[in-house]
Amino acid sequence: MPRLSLKGQQMPESPIRKLVPYATAAKAAGKKVYHLNIGQPDIETPEVALNAVKNLDRKVIEYSNSEGYASYREGLAKYYNGVGIDVSASDIMVTTGGSEALIFGFMTCMDPGDEIIIPEPFYANYNGFATMAGLNVKPITAKIEDGFALPPIEEFERRITENTRAILICNPGNPTGTLYGKESLEKLAALVKKYDLFLFSDEVYREFCYDTAIPFSCLNLPDLDDHVVVVDSVSKRYSMCGVRVGALVSRNKELMTNALKFAQARLSPPTLGQIAGEAALQTPPEYFERVKEEYVQRRNTLVEGLNAIEGVTCPKPAGAFYAMAQLPVDSGDRFCQWMLEEFDLDGETVMMAPGSGFYSTVVFGEKQVRIAYVLKEEDLKRSVKIIEAGLKAYPGRTF
Amino acid sequence: MPRLSLKGQQMPESPIRKLVPYATAAKAAGKKVYHLNIGQPDIETPEVALNAVKNLDRKVIEYSNSEGYASYREGLAKYYNGVGIDVSASDIMVTTGGSEALIFGFMTCMDPGDEIIIPEPFYANYNGFATMAGLNVKPITAKIEDGFALPPIEEFERRITENTRAILICNPGNPTGTLYGKESLEKLAALVKKYDLFLFSDEVYREFCYDTAIPFSCLNLPDLDDHVVVVDSVSKRYSMCGVRVGALVSRNKELMTNALKFAQARLSPPTLGQIAGEAALQTPPEYFERVKEEYVQRRNTLVEGLNAIEGVTCPKPAGAFYAMAQLPVDSGDRFCQWMLEEFDLDGETVMMAPGSGFYSTVVFGEKQVRIAYVLKEEDLKRSVKIIEAGLKAYPGRTF
Repeated sequence: MPRLSLKGQQMPESPIRKLVPYATAAKAAGKKVYHLNIGQPDIETPEVALNAVKNLDRKVIEYSNSEGYASYREGLAKYYNGVGIDVSASDIMVTTGGSEALIFGFMTCMDPGDEIIIPEPFYANYNGFATMAGLNVKPITAKIEDGFALPPIEEFERRITENTRAILICNPGNPTGTLYGKESLEKLAALVKKYDLFLFSDEVYREFCYDTAIPFSCLNLPDLDDHVVVVDSVSKRYSMCGVRVGALVSRNKELMTNALKFAQARLSPPTLGQIAGEAALQTPPEYFERVKEEYVQRRNTLVEGLNAIEGVTCPKPAGAFYAMAQLPVDSGDRFCQWMLEEFDLDGETVMMAPGSGFYSTVVFGEKQVRIAYVLKEEDLKRSVKIIEAGLKAYPGRTF
Repeated sequence: MPRLSLKGQQMPESPIRKLVPYATAAKAAGKKVYHLNIGQPDIETPEVALNAVKNLDRKVIEYSNSEGYASYREGLAKYYNGVGIDVSASDIMVTTGGSEALIFGFMTCMDPGDEIIIPEPFYANYNGFATMAGLNVKPITAKIEDGFALPPIEEFERRITENTRAILICNPGNPTGTLYGKESLEKLAALVKKYDLFLFSDEVYREFCYDTAIPFSCLNLPDLDDHVVVVDSVSKRYSMCGVRVGALVSRNKELMTNALKFAQARLSPPTLGQIAGEAALQTPPEYFERVKEEYVQRRNTLVEGLNAIEGVTCPKPAGAFYAMAQLPVDSGDRFCQWMLEEFDLDGETVMMAPGSGFYSTVVFGEKQVRIAYVLKEEDLKRSVKIIEAGLKAYPGRTF
């Protein structure tokens, strides 16, 4: 048998997937499992998007332009203008989900062996995209006791080498829900300018900012047009993860020209998804109001519930729909597995994502778990009870 | 401004795209342009697939499994069984078009610096995927005077170095329409075994074999389970290029396990496209009969018409819907551009793809063009007349 690639061997397995067999076994054994492990919201896709798909009026489902339909890009530009971001259609390339925007962005800006600095905990698949592009990820740990705020800028500077090409942030953040404010971003901007780096900003959770929090896009950092690359997606915004439509947004013309070459090689982003995406631009504002209200309640229920448990710390997220919690356990990995394998409360248990998978420096995350508040409040209340009971019964508890 | 990647600079521009501005200008000047340059068929998508999309019965367009919906993979397995290929659902990973199957396949099997041998002329985007994976393409020229048959096996063997990891074929072929028979493939199989290589077979045109031609899948080569990787797509089969659904098919379990890691990083192939793809499996056989009949007529019209022009050679393709023609001109690139920029026959002209873009060894293709017979017969007849008149008027003609 011919040997397979090193790259394929180095590709990280999703930290969430590892637990799937245990969840499957738990269900087979008759347990009810509350899925707080994934970012698949239960929120309904806007009707206007569903209807656009149902009213499909074509005889042939053709390729779109490689950069996406012109009308959709114009519509996206208007959407960005509406949230205070001054870009035009030519600054936008439609991609197959935010995932592809990251892959194309990485490959357009960096070569194998280059380094990218990412505050951790971070979205685990960044590792996969970095591996695909041959990049080395240099993590900087954001601390749970600081509410996962952006680490001090000196920490970033300390990690810059001659191979450093970019910094990547997720704002609001997955898995922390932390929102970086204008001041933090301006410090990053100065550093990025000083060392002539790219600043990748994953802003797919833009519409999910709670209470008084207002998102600040890196595209609004002054004098940084050639440096900023924003990754976007309709997956979470309109709860239609399956359409696989995202965007790469940058005012750097040369960057966009080169990125288009990657897009041309794969021909076109999904036509049907773009039809849904373009229609979704007409989603009434009340939709987002309702969704935000729902998430605020869920977050409050979850975070207050968790913090009321002895030994649990869970900073209150300002955005997205995840919370990272520190648990009084020997290992988040073992605890999450044990909850599925060994534990139930009246036949029910909870599936969470072990925190370690979101860290490169595993030691910092080993007692943490990520909980996605993508289920309705009632289920979250019940889940908190199950976690509390689980923590009491868990042999590896540390309180 | 930070410097961009070398990879992005090395990414080849699509040979077809270069002419797009000239086509746009021709249209702006009032010319009618017959598009024989692209593989976007005018054939209607099967109704059963369109209806599945229109009857969408979901409130949330969720992610599918990373490897594709289980039911769709089962359906695909049945489809393959039906065309005499013995695979099961676990041998199939659903991808975002054949493009992604190639990228994941390349990255799973090869590392940067590795070499892949491809008979040329070949589908130009193979270059892009190879660049993304950091591979070096080693071409072997198939000759127009041999009808673009598989080059002698000694030619392949001569190109094998310690870095050679794979051979890639497209069967039936884009851009040549050539179908490799069992005997040719068995020779390749022996070589692949001898040097422990992977054999990538792009079989997306399987359903487009004409007259008495019967396609032979590399999956049916004996004792080659660990070596063969088939790339497939629904784009051409059901004329729904825009759904972006393809497949990677291999019986090599370890290969599929590693490929899945790439698939997991990007979460899921398009959900809507898979709905269309699964429904399309119910397309009645008459659909393919009608389509094949249509293409046979088109091919005959085109190829006979071209060969009747003085100085033109065009082997008769056995499959797909492209023909490569050698023209009596100084340069296919210049001729194709001239046809758009300078020429018209009663206000009409033809857009073709210059052959050079399908060759790494450009010299062999410099007088060739690729013509896709994706327009109705009447338009093809007219196109042949226009090409004939164009050749007579072209200042760089060589007859």
